[in-house]
Amino acid sequence: MGKLLVIHGPNLNLLGMREVAVYGNVTIDGINRMVEEEAGKYSLDVDFYQSNHEGDIVDKIQEAVRGYDCIIINPGALTHYSIAVRDALVAVDIPVIETHLSNIYKREDFRHKSVIASIAVGQISGFGPQSYVLAVRAAAEIIKA
Amino acid sequence: MGKLLVIHGPNLNLLGMREVAVYGNVTIDGINRMVEEEAGKYSLDVDFYQSNHEGDIVDKIQEAVRGYDCIIINPGALTHYSIAVRDALVAVDIPVIETHLSNIYKREDFRHKSVIASIAVGQISGFGPQSYVLAVRAAAEIIKA
Amino acid sequence: MGKLLVIHGPNLNLLGMREVAVYGNVTIDGINRMVEEEAGKYSLDVDFYQSNHEGDIVDKIQEAVRGYDCIIINPGALTHYSIAVRDALVAVDIPVIETHLSNIYKREDFRHKSVIASIAVGQISGFGPQSYVLAVRAAAEIIKA
Amino acid sequence: MGKLLVIHGPNLNLLGMREVAVYGNVTIDGINRMVEEEAGKYSLDVDFYQSNHEGDIVDKIQEAVRGYDCIIINPGALTHYSIAVRDALVAVDIPVIETHLSNIYKREDFRHKSVIASIAVGQISGFGPQSYVLAVRAAAEIIKA
Amino acid sequence: MGKLLVIHGPNLNLLGMREVAVYGNVTIDGINRMVEEEAGKYSLDVDFYQSNHEGDIVDKIQEAVRGYDCIIINPGALTHYSIAVRDALVAVDIPVIETHLSNIYKREDFRHKSVIASIAVGQISGFGPQSYVLAVRAAAEIIKA
Amino acid sequence: MGKLLVIHGPNLNLLGMREVAVYGNVTIDGINRMVEEEAGKYSLDVDFYQSNHEGDIVDKIQEAVRGYDCIIINPGALTHYSIAVRDALVAVDIPVIETHLSNIYKREDFRHKSVIASIAVGQISGFGPQSYVLAVRAAAEIIKA
Amino acid sequence: MGKLLVIHGPNLNLLGMREVAVYGNVTIDGINRMVEEEAGKYSLDVDFYQSNHEGDIVDKIQEAVRGYDCIIINPGALTHYSIAVRDALVAVDIPVIETHLSNIYKREDFRHKSVIASIAVGQISGFGPQSYVLAVRAAAEIIKA
Amino acid sequence: MGKLLVIHGPNLNLLGMREVAVYGNVTIDGINRMVEEEAGKYSLDVDFYQSNHEGDIVDKIQEAVRGYDCIIINPGALTHYSIAVRDALVAVDIPVIETHLSNIYKREDFRHKSVIASIAVGQISGFGPQSYVLAVRAAAEIIKA
Amino acid sequence: MGKLLVIHGPNLNLLGMREVAVYGNVTIDGINRMVEEEAGKYSLDVDFYQSNHEGDIVDKIQEAVRGYDCIIINPGALTHYSIAVRDALVAVDIPVIETHLSNIYKREDFRHKSVIASIAVGQISGFGPQSYVLAVRAAAEIIKA
Amino acid sequence: MGKLLVIHGPNLNLLGMREVAVYGNVTIDGINRMVEEEAGKYSLDVDFYQSNHEGDIVDKIQEAVRGYDCIIINPGALTHYSIAVRDALVAVDIPVIETHLSNIYKREDFRHKSVIASIAVGQISGFGPQSYVLAVRAAAEIIKA
Amino acid sequence: MGKLLVIHGPNLNLLGMREVAVYGNVTIDGINRMVEEEAGKYSLDVDFYQSNHEGDIVDKIQEAVRGYDCIIINPGALTHYSIAVRDALVAVDIPVIETHLSNIYKREDFRHKSVIASIAVGQISGFGPQSYVLAVRAAAEIIKA
Amino acid sequence: MGKLLVIHGPNLNLLGMREVAVYGNVTIDGINRMVEEEAGKYSLDVDFYQSNHEGDIVDKIQEAVRGYDCIIINPGALTHYSIAVRDALVAVDIPVIETHLSNIYKREDFRHKSVIASIAVGQISGFGPQSYVLAVRAAAEIIKA
Repeated sequence: MGKLLVIHGPNLNLLGMREVAVYGNVTIDGINRMVEEEAGKYSLDVDFYQSNHEGDIVDKIQEAVRGYDCIIINPGALTHYSIAVRDALVAVDIPVIETHLSNIYKREDFRHKSVIASIAVGQISGFGPQSYVLAVRAAAEIIKA
Repeated sequence: MGKLLVIHGPNLNLLGMREVAVYGNVTIDGINRMVEEEAGKYSLDVDFYQSNHEGDIVDKIQEAVRGYDCIIINPGALTHYSIAVRDALVAVDIPVIETHLSNIYKREDFRHKSVIASIAVGQISGFGPQSYVLAVRAAAEIIKA
Repeated sequence: MGKLLVIHGPNLNLLGMREVAVYGNVTIDGINRMVEEEAGKYSLDVDFYQSNHEGDIVDKIQEAVRGYDCIIINPGALTHYSIAVRDALVAVDIPVIETHLSNIYKREDFRHKSVIASIAVGQISGFGPQSYVLAVRAAAEIIKA
Repeated sequence: MGKLLVIHGPNLNLLGMREVAVYGNVTIDGINRMVEEEAGKYSLDVDFYQSNHEGDIVDKIQEAVRGYDCIIINPGALTHYSIAVRDALVAVDIPVIETHLSNIYKREDFRHKSVIASIAVGQISGFGPQSYVLAVRAAAEIIKA
Repeated sequence: MGKLLVIHGPNLNLLGMREVAVYGNVTIDGINRMVEEEAGKYSLDVDFYQSNHEGDIVDKIQEAVRGYDCIIINPGALTHYSIAVRDALVAVDIPVIETHLSNIYKREDFRHKSVIASIAVGQISGFGPQSYVLAVRAAAEIIKA
Repeated sequence: MGKLLVIHGPNLNLLGMREVAVYGNVTIDGINRMVEEEAGKYSLDVDFYQSNHEGDIVDKIQEAVRGYDCIIINPGALTHYSIAVRDALVAVDIPVIETHLSNIYKREDFRHKSVIASIAVGQISGFGPQSYVLAVRAAAEIIKA
Repeated sequence: MGKLLVIHGPNLNLLGMREVAVYGNVTIDGINRMVEEEAGKYSLDVDFYQSNHEGDIVDKIQEAVRGYDCIIINPGALTHYSIAVRDALVAVDIPVIETHLSNIYKREDFRHKSVIASIAVGQISGFGPQSYVLAVRAAAEIIKA
Repeated sequence: MGKLLVIHGPNLNLLGMREVAVYGNVTIDGINRMVEEEAGKYSLDVDFYQSNHEGDIVDKIQEAVRGYDCIIINPGALTHYSIAVRDALVAVDIPVIETHLSNIYKREDFRHKSVIASIAVGQISGFGPQSYVLAVRAAAEIIKA
Repeated sequence: MGKLLVIHGPNLNLLGMREVAVYGNVTIDGINRMVEEEAGKYSLDVDFYQSNHEGDIVDKIQEAVRGYDCIIINPGALTHYSIAVRDALVAVDIPVIETHLSNIYKREDFRHKSVIASIAVGQISGFGPQSYVLAVRAAAEIIKA
Repeated sequence: MGKLLVIHGPNLNLLGMREVAVYGNVTIDGINRMVEEEAGKYSLDVDFYQSNHEGDIVDKIQEAVRGYDCIIINPGALTHYSIAVRDALVAVDIPVIETHLSNIYKREDFRHKSVIASIAVGQISGFGPQSYVLAVRAAAEIIKA
Repeated sequence: MGKLLVIHGPNLNLLGMREVAVYGNVTIDGINRMVEEEAGKYSLDVDFYQSNHEGDIVDKIQEAVRGYDCIIINPGALTHYSIAVRDALVAVDIPVIETHLSNIYKREDFRHKSVIASIAVGQISGFGPQSYVLAVRAAAEIIKA
Repeated sequence: MGKLLVIHGPNLNLLGMREVAVYGNVTIDGINRMVEEEAGKYSLDVDFYQSNHEGDIVDKIQEAVRGYDCIIINPGALTHYSIAVRDALVAVDIPVIETHLSNIYKREDFRHKSVIASIAVGQISGFGPQSYVLAVRAAAEIIKA
């Protein structure tokens, strides 16, 4: 009924293995399974991509122009400076949902500014792995509309 | 299984009646029904409150200390300057979810700053009435945890 | 021929009674009579409202959607921070004229910034009670156009 | 010999009941009794007022023009943005003492700025309930002078 | 009964001929006739001056010291940087009314700051040619007082 | 086939005579000859204008509305503060190309900001007299399009 | 029952002799006597120290580690830049009360910032010599607690 | 007679395929052909490189030290934050010309700042594909000199 | 033995006639006579120039390249924004002494910044007409050296 | 006895070959040999890694979690913006020492800010290749402790 | 006929011995002799004081209250941060002339701000030892007036 | 073979006695012994100086001009504001190494700025007493070179 691309930015491959006190013990695979389960409820297919390389993420977004109806992206550290990722998202013209595990407004000042937010449909921040699950549901509504 | 308080800030009583091009034609009652329906899935009771008065919202939050497990608040214009609302939310020590119909990061500069965000569990912004529905689901997870 | 709503913000009820050296000895009733007299020249009806409560002013503006052709507002201290009043004025979509008795650009730095100005038709500042009278005349032109 | 008005701003009604670790377990009634006791030493009468509503506090200050010799105010969150409260205090032209339970210079950056301080006689910050007691004594000196 | 000097700053000679969509199709001559008509009601004589040269405007203001009771000035682009015009207006010590056709607070950020405003009696901004007409009326009151 | 107006701002008349180490030994006449030669390739007529007076440049731009297809302007020092020149360029609605002999981004901080750039078609900075030659070529393309 | 150290910063030795219109005609000895009298009520011993030398004040604070229960300091001009005094106060770990004769929030902008405030128990500003007397009383409470 | 390296930054591979309304329908290959044609006029060889990866662009610039006389670079989004690209350009010490298709001074505030500009010979911005063609010509002059 | 050019910027022609309370009752002719007298002591010839036109002052400075050994300039309001005057002074490469009648550091914030100071030999500010006399003496030393 | 990972950021592979006047003629291999020699004194093994790719450096840091006791990193240009490198260093929770060949506080303003410094044990800047040697010794102490 | 106190701030004792290229080879004694010679012309006595200690300079200024008619001060580095020196100068209420050997507006940004300037009669900056000589002459005029 | 001067700024005399949790239990004498031991390895003599007085440190640096080859300075609180210490270090023209026990980039914002850093050879921050030991080694290399 639709197809999602979920992009995890730099260092998110370490989830559940490092800084467990901060990010919890769910791994990136665990999150991906939660996402797939939620997507299944709305008959959405999902592909996943993680990279620590800004350039690879830009490449991936560019390829997304063929066949995806919505992009869910947790840009990690790139949230705060990657105008290249922003430009790629604008160029492919697919609805974007920005997610964050932690509440970025509770963290260092430089994390309060997202260069992605103003070109996304919306932002979900602070609910841990649920941020992704909620994003899937939001994506389902967007695709349906 | 739990009890939610949904607070709508100033001017949200006009939803669906004014600025339809911007906010859509769903009324505040329509949103409340969507919230109730979602809450029903998780056996959550919901109470609703709307006011254009900062002081009334502070009073309401203070009363919430008796009997609510989570507060979902769209503070409207108060998002950007009401330290009084912030202080009330901190004082009652109930988990808070901040929601916005529109993506506040796409609007005027003064709307990019929320004085509420850093004391909320998380923030959901930009999905129209779905911002509230997603918040209910997030609340269900928080209460369950 | 048309109907005006004149709104006086916080502390303007004290006009002519306190700080006479600064604001002159005309009372709010005196101003209202000057406004009525001027409005009479253009066959405009006028209603007046004063409150020290931001929420009450928001409520009043919302009600104005029924039956007023123009709002003249001196938001007093709310000029500088009440995004709620701003949002209400945008929502009702009635032409707004912002007035100030004193020249706000001669006063403390924090009074140089109006959050209302950019959504008003225009601003008249510094002419004492005449600021209101001039606003009535401007309103007559706007209603005629 | 003189009459004091003590005004407590938003959320101060929760003192001693919430955030006890931060603000201690003295209630607002407890503070008021300490204030009365101290005022008694200087034969000063005291009235007390607490509100979560900026407009109510403005109204109260305006009424104070009849019969009070000094205002002691802990504006709570309004300290940082209520130009309306500031304007009211200037209008009534009664000596003002600003108090804070906590040391506002140890807290979030946005609490370091008081819009009240520059129109008060002085400020007392950081001594818990004693901030009020010291203010009473300062008021006694001011009234005597 | 009195004498007005109306000064139009740089580019205002193009009114009604260029950027009609923004400024309307009234020419500077049209505005001047409206000003004269209004001035006639109060038995005021008016002289007009337009220049694209900051220095010429400073010269003109200096000459105004002989024989004018009030200056109405729309400084155009000079509003935002000409401390020389400001200094000249201060030197001649004639009441000044600052006018703008458009609402400068709705335009680019650099137009929100006027170096003239703090030395004028008042400012009228946003009412098109009526900004001048209202200024004449304000001038009549100032001269009368 | 088209007609160009080349405007040189303040102090550019001194080119080749002063600060030779910085700006080279080509005079303004030399630049004008290079411009004419290049313009000849595209059958463009060129007029030249230099002034140290902001007002004269505004006047000249206003006159340009009759008969020019493109303006090439090196505003010199006016680049950084002349909103009057900017407004004139907007008013005449002729394509504008901004040029600079030196790379303004290598110089003092106050030279990094151009109030002209955002209303020009484009900007060419840093190539010495070639900045003008390139601008002629760019103009030819703009006129052709 | 306890021992206080009262430190007066640069230029406070001139009190009562210079700038009488601003600071009143009480001398530093006068203040010290008022302090002693108040301290006597709580059976507190007091030592006094004044210096125009930042280094001497740092030395004195370091020595205070032996035998004082509370430091009352009016750092004078050092309030605004002496991180060395701040560091000394932190190092000795004795409760500190910051006092000012004048209301520093009514004075030049550079006096609104105290580098001491955030490491003091609290701050008392604006009550003239009474600022010290109130500080003694606050100290008595702190020592008792 | 000389050899050019033309570097296209992130997302420029999408030219002519996406956002046609903004960037026109010329593809990167189309631009490269225009560049080659212009370069041919001056007997210059040209190599082209595009990447979405900052690191690849840094590598390419480092290799350029062997055999190129001038680098023309449109850094795309990297213009605004890649100090690594800047450092590489400084290290290889080959003349650099910075180009932009769109006028970066007409776009979002964060695009007004280039970290490359101050180390380039010059910058050409806003002329679409012609920005590159003009850069080739400028390069020819630089190589000749 | 040498030749001085003294330049008076906008509004200085009004000296002694307007704002006497601020600038004293010495006219520009009076200052010029004081300058001539002082210059005579060092056998220096002096020419004087006053204009309210930035462009005229730039023209005059350019002409100064023939025959003057030192320029004394009180740029008046142009001090704070005329990069054109600054550029002219740099171009002619004659020693410049900047003078001000009033102490510009005691006035409005925008007068604290001089765009001329960093290219002058030195600045003399605050001594009334003596600022010019001292400048003549400084010029004599510079010419002698 | 312990194992070090030394990471060289973008452009450091050019050391000794380019900008010799600035960075000296020691190559990256030369530095690595100096590091190995110093490490030998403390029986520390060292691995080296250089990349111009932010993503590769993030990958390398993540791998470091297996088997390294300390990371010495000269992030080059990434020092100033790579929150991704910062996040990786925090995630692996290995002591980090930040080094710079040049004194970054003597260079351009944008190099004064390190996003790495606040998560490192310490920073050594300005001693050329010795910065690395000192870091090895500091690492030895850290590992020993 | 009058008495001057000349105060030299920190490091000025090294004049003529260190940094000769910057400050010239005149020693502090040489300057003092030039000052005495100039003072002799106006029958002024002069005392000199140099210290590297802020506190000593404050002490000296305080003593100056007995017997000096004018203070000439080159505060050296204290110019930029010593509010204590500023306060002392204000307290003694003797006319102050601020001098600098070098032009502080040509140096580092932090030297452009003087905390002394706004309380001095005037400032003379950039003329080497002549700055002092000119100050003596200015002092003579001030004392005479 | 060479001679070092080690200067400890304000409050460093308390090391090991106060705030042990932060700074460790090594005293200033302990550090000095570590420094001597390290210096011995390179046949360097060392003198030590500690003062809480800025002026004394300036005096000491001035004297250092006779007989020291390198200065190691931990300016303590003076790091952040003592331009006098900076100027002294520049004047004596001896290589300077700035050290800090704690990592100043992990502490309060005002500690992130050093006015010394840009005139030092380099800075070592965050390694506890080892910061000094590393500095000695760096000094040995500098003296050798």
